[in-house]
Amino acid sequence: MPLSPPISSPTLPPTTQLRIELADRSYDIQIGCGLLDHPDAVACGARSSEALIVTNTTVAPLYAARLQHALAKHHARVCTIALPDGEAHKDFETLNLIFDRLLGDGFDRKAVVYALGGGVIGDMTGFAAACYMRGVAYVQVPTTLLAQVDSSVGGKTAINHPAGKNMIGAFYQPLRVIADLDTLDTLPDREISAGLAEVIKYGPIADDDFLGWIEQHIDALRARDKAALAHAVRRSCEIKAWVVGQDERESGLRAILNFGHTFGHAIEAGLGFGAWLHGEAVGCGMVMAAELSVRCGLIDATYAARIARLIERAGLPTRGPRLGAARYLELMRIDKKSESGQIRFVLIDAPGQASLHHADDALVAQVIDANTV
Amino acid sequence: MPLSPPISSPTLPPTTQLRIELADRSYDIQIGCGLLDHPDAVACGARSSEALIVTNTTVAPLYAARLQHALAKHHARVCTIALPDGEAHKDFETLNLIFDRLLGDGFDRKAVVYALGGGVIGDMTGFAAACYMRGVAYVQVPTTLLAQVDSSVGGKTAINHPAGKNMIGAFYQPLRVIADLDTLDTLPDREISAGLAEVIKYGPIADDDFLGWIEQHIDALRARDKAALAHAVRRSCEIKAWVVGQDERESGLRAILNFGHTFGHAIEAGLGFGAWLHGEAVGCGMVMAAELSVRCGLIDATYAARIARLIERAGLPTRGPRLGAARYLELMRIDKKSESGQIRFVLIDAPGQASLHHADDALVAQVIDANTV
Repeated sequence: MPLSPPISSPTLPPTTQLRIELADRSYDIQIGCGLLDHPDAVACGARSSEALIVTNTTVAPLYAARLQHALAKHHARVCTIALPDGEAHKDFETLNLIFDRLLGDGFDRKAVVYALGGGVIGDMTGFAAACYMRGVAYVQVPTTLLAQVDSSVGGKTAINHPAGKNMIGAFYQPLRVIADLDTLDTLPDREISAGLAEVIKYGPIADDDFLGWIEQHIDALRARDKAALAHAVRRSCEIKAWVVGQDERESGLRAILNFGHTFGHAIEAGLGFGAWLHGEAVGCGMVMAAELSVRCGLIDATYAARIARLIERAGLPTRGPRLGAARYLELMRIDKKSESGQIRFVLIDAPGQASLHHADDALVAQVIDANTV
Repeated sequence: MPLSPPISSPTLPPTTQLRIELADRSYDIQIGCGLLDHPDAVACGARSSEALIVTNTTVAPLYAARLQHALAKHHARVCTIALPDGEAHKDFETLNLIFDRLLGDGFDRKAVVYALGGGVIGDMTGFAAACYMRGVAYVQVPTTLLAQVDSSVGGKTAINHPAGKNMIGAFYQPLRVIADLDTLDTLPDREISAGLAEVIKYGPIADDDFLGWIEQHIDALRARDKAALAHAVRRSCEIKAWVVGQDERESGLRAILNFGHTFGHAIEAGLGFGAWLHGEAVGCGMVMAAELSVRCGLIDATYAARIARLIERAGLPTRGPRLGAARYLELMRIDKKSESGQIRFVLIDAPGQASLHHADDALVAQVIDANTV
């Protein structure tokens, strides 16, 4: 007689599988419903007796036990740590809680770490995995729309420094990304909107047809229509996989994924991390970046207005906080894309096409003054 | 008329150049005298206007100004930060001082960071470079024998955690290693002895002839004979380059470089980091590991005695502190080489040959009891 009841393995639900091609660091993204409970869906492919689920106090009561149960088929020991929730905790102090737990519980370098949560959990857990014993395996299990369409894919990990967002981190690819669309059911409306900012982003920078599709389906997406969400997540991941596959470490092309982020990071840092959601700041930042593209003579005003309108329809702010142009410029100068004190902006060159540009401070200040309240 | 006097470029002194072959992460190790003052010798090959020298309060007054002067030919701005000295400061708090300085002074991701000092400075600066904006370039300028023969080569970077040595870190290769033998002139005798521990290490694990050479030259090495030191540094780096070139991320062979380190780390953690120098703990650890090799029936007692005698002649302790075998075992179980709670030791299989082994706790306890006072 077996010592514990065998875990049933129902048929795997329909799943879309995409691949990030990065030579020996290649991995799959699984997108579907009901994945979290399914031992085959959460298999990471690594042979390890020990796993740690890193999550936060909001997500833990919703999904940690279910993931832990599914992982029990693959690991003899599965532990969970729930960190405080929110961007304000994406810091050294919280990162150290992960290390304390890993060391306190005797996890060795064959351990696998699962990041169960949104972008903050994914970024911080990925960075902890990159550094623990100089690197252990990790799996992304994103539970927010923003994490599913953007932050869980591509291996950018980091924590914030009081002086700037994501300043301390590593490029470190996960073993797998498991995006269970059902976890979006419990997401607050505000988080759905924040995630839509990163979905919308892929239109102007890479796929104008996708922008049109989002315009047609924005209400369905906000209403959490599963078919619409499935397409949005899949197409977003496809574009991100295509970009990251060409430029893993952001020596060029990958920077376009930061459309709206230079202004957005300044909003986040200027207000204090956590005041606005990352997606809210990015949404507002895209309005500013689109307007800067117009003022630089790259696109016409109707295209920028179209983007601003869609961001508004997604339930996102389109005007930034009035920190003053000088403060915005100061904060943007410590952006990672800056070189020799010159800020570089991702601007739209044409519908569905973007690249890095310098812009005169005076022009940037005009955009900030016109778009802050 | 030029605004500043041109820096003279005397002929480069005789330099040995070795190469670490790691595909696109390959780099050179320069070994010689008088390198620190020479702009051509300290050139890192990276095009960057900005450089930060990270050093400590002991090394800064000796060498920082000279390196800063030589680097002025390559970078428009060269800053220096002097951290508190010693293994006790290889922690998050001190690491953050580097990030604070980089961000406070507006260093961008094209910056080059120079690690000027011993193993602690090299490990911590390398890790800071690995994480700052997800990775900036760095150069190792080791000023201790230990750093020149071991820690500056191979890309292992880390800080300590209260629970264990080098637990948080990254594999991150430097652009170049510049080992100026003249910097050893100012080293305390105790640090020369500590460095000799890592030199001696290469004998039993990889090159029995080299062990014989060290036995013949141990007094010259302790007296800082430049020719003897030059050979010791070169041969040590050659062996390390050969090992690291085959196994960068320590999936197998590279672990042999940790001969003596499992016992040694337990001594360091057990007494509190900084009480013993790393090399002292490793020297004593090698005596224990050699004796464990004998008790496991791998080598005969005369070979172990030969190693112990040489370590003693190097001016190093051969008996560990009496923490009790249980405490040693507890500390060793969180060693990075451990798997599923089983400690793995680097043991000598034959003169000049070593590999990873499990050993019974009882046998290990006997070795500890016999070799601690």
